[in-house]
Amino acid sequence: MKTMLTDKQVSLFSELLKRDNFCIVMHKSPDGDTIGSSFALLSALKKMGKNAQIVCSDEVPPQMRFISDGIDVFDLQFEPETVVSVDIASQTLFGEKYAYLSEKVDFAIDHHFSNTFYAKETILCDKMSSAGEVMFHLFKSAGIEFDDYIAKKLYTAISFDSGCFRFSNTSPETHLAAAELLRYDFDASAINTKMFDCASLAQLKIESDALNSVRQYKDNQITMVTVRYAQVEKLGVNENELGGLTAITRRVAGTVVGITVREKSDGEIRISLRSQQEAPLADFDVSKVAAKFGGGGHVRAAGLSMRCSVEEAEQKILEAVIEEWDRLYDNPCK
Amino acid sequence: MKTMLTDKQVSLFSELLKRDNFCIVMHKSPDGDTIGSSFALLSALKKMGKNAQIVCSDEVPPQMRFISDGIDVFDLQFEPETVVSVDIASQTLFGEKYAYLSEKVDFAIDHHFSNTFYAKETILCDKMSSAGEVMFHLFKSAGIEFDDYIAKKLYTAISFDSGCFRFSNTSPETHLAAAELLRYDFDASAINTKMFDCASLAQLKIESDALNSVRQYKDNQITMVTVRYAQVEKLGVNENELGGLTAITRRVAGTVVGITVREKSDGEIRISLRSQQEAPLADFDVSKVAAKFGGGGHVRAAGLSMRCSVEEAEQKILEAVIEEWDRLYDNPCK
Repeated sequence: MKTMLTDKQVSLFSELLKRDNFCIVMHKSPDGDTIGSSFALLSALKKMGKNAQIVCSDEVPPQMRFISDGIDVFDLQFEPETVVSVDIASQTLFGEKYAYLSEKVDFAIDHHFSNTFYAKETILCDKMSSAGEVMFHLFKSAGIEFDDYIAKKLYTAISFDSGCFRFSNTSPETHLAAAELLRYDFDASAINTKMFDCASLAQLKIESDALNSVRQYKDNQITMVTVRYAQVEKLGVNENELGGLTAITRRVAGTVVGITVREKSDGEIRISLRSQQEAPLADFDVSKVAAKFGGGGHVRAAGLSMRCSVEEAEQKILEAVIEEWDRLYDNPCK
Repeated sequence: MKTMLTDKQVSLFSELLKRDNFCIVMHKSPDGDTIGSSFALLSALKKMGKNAQIVCSDEVPPQMRFISDGIDVFDLQFEPETVVSVDIASQTLFGEKYAYLSEKVDFAIDHHFSNTFYAKETILCDKMSSAGEVMFHLFKSAGIEFDDYIAKKLYTAISFDSGCFRFSNTSPETHLAAAELLRYDFDASAINTKMFDCASLAQLKIESDALNSVRQYKDNQITMVTVRYAQVEKLGVNENELGGLTAITRRVAGTVVGITVREKSDGEIRISLRSQQEAPLADFDVSKVAAKFGGGGHVRAAGLSMRCSVEEAEQKILEAVIEEWDRLYDNPCK
């Protein structure tokens, strides 16, 4: 496989490996990529006889602990000499507890286009699917041999961020990395089941409730779902387990614009907007709609908050989406 | 990439390519693998100037028609000289309409371990994820060049049968094939969304209903769901769109044995059993339980039918599962 790294990146990683007493920082709300990549790096450094630790501002959610070897809380064990951030695009993503480390990062290893270059040195491969894929190439460039453990962590990171090779960030090189890692001994299928196919019964029931609330407009191309706090409370679901709801409208075949309205425990109404379509429709830019309410995001995924009743929020957001819809698709003067 | 085929398989495919006036047979209830692989073969044969057609006993379901280029019904157009079955393990899988072709198959191209060798010549690669992966290697062995269209069809077939590279049939070679195919111009992400992330609203609502019926036993390790015909009828779901329900218990975290009870329009009660577990639990063989009721299947997926009330069926199957459970896991004499 040809190297996917620049000479500069290779030499930066080789500089990193000369250092010692590492603190590897994962981003807040840790996910499969930041955890898998950090654990792979930790293991590689320890095998080289280095002193290394991982920290994270937030607790690892229960369903991700199989990636963090069962560990939930990561605190500083010793005063670090070398701070390495993994999969962290900007300083705000360090989270509260370890925000101060964001000023002292020696090396950032990342794949986000939006990386703000907060570190002294940044190894950024923004064409790669995941920090795991970056780490895979860095290890190869440095002659770090994979073993079953490292291969499993890197595979987990790559699979997580590529949605099990389904998202458009998956390149031929992503598959080549997976092919090489799968030659080691670990149960990839079990990992993917845990990451992508499992949810607590309570989470699944909240999804059911959301689906039962579906209303559709514009020939079923606009799909809106609503989740009230009373339902969340009744099922005893933790609010941080509700991330999957933002994508639920995408599962309804034919949906071009999806609206998820969620009432939070503090009364705030959180609205997620998603869009997807194929030619010949022009892209529906949901971030434009979100911006009208002080929110933001990207063309196909955006979010905003309101302080009002659920009904009022539904009405306001629907009106704004339909207004943009009519401007884009129903304008007879176009 | 090293060839994954035997010399015999390579020479059989080269024999096939010398023939003409092909009829390519897809299996009944056509899926992404049989359709994608058959269309790839059709296109390759036509590019070679051959006369070729595809047939299938069943209609292609709406959600699969993006793979069959929008075609729903495949009928015999001309009297074939060469019959090729694709992804068909046994003669019963030809379906009713084209059952007679199952006696005249010149070449079977398949990846099912259970292939019954009904064809004159069989190209069987039972270590491969999919007929698409077999076809990929056959094309390479014969020097058939991929193009965007063929690459898209083969990728679709492979991704479908490997569950988007998530099932345990995914090997390093599966990823290598995907890597090569992804270098062609098609939208893999859109294909995966259509195959894995989309369902009609009615299907999603039936899933919701199923999840709301969940009952759990043995510390939530046995999960049972029930779908009554009245619900299916109310939502206007076609019975052939309910295939996804058999796997729904697997989505509930912690489930070791899943039981799906479904009442059909004719009053038959169809029961699907699934098992999954990691060490240290021994495998729960659901086919053993199914066999008690005249059903069958594999260790981790089996099915059976009953003629009785829904309640009676639920009680009988639950008792049988719990009996096997106690024998395996709760036996103090073990």
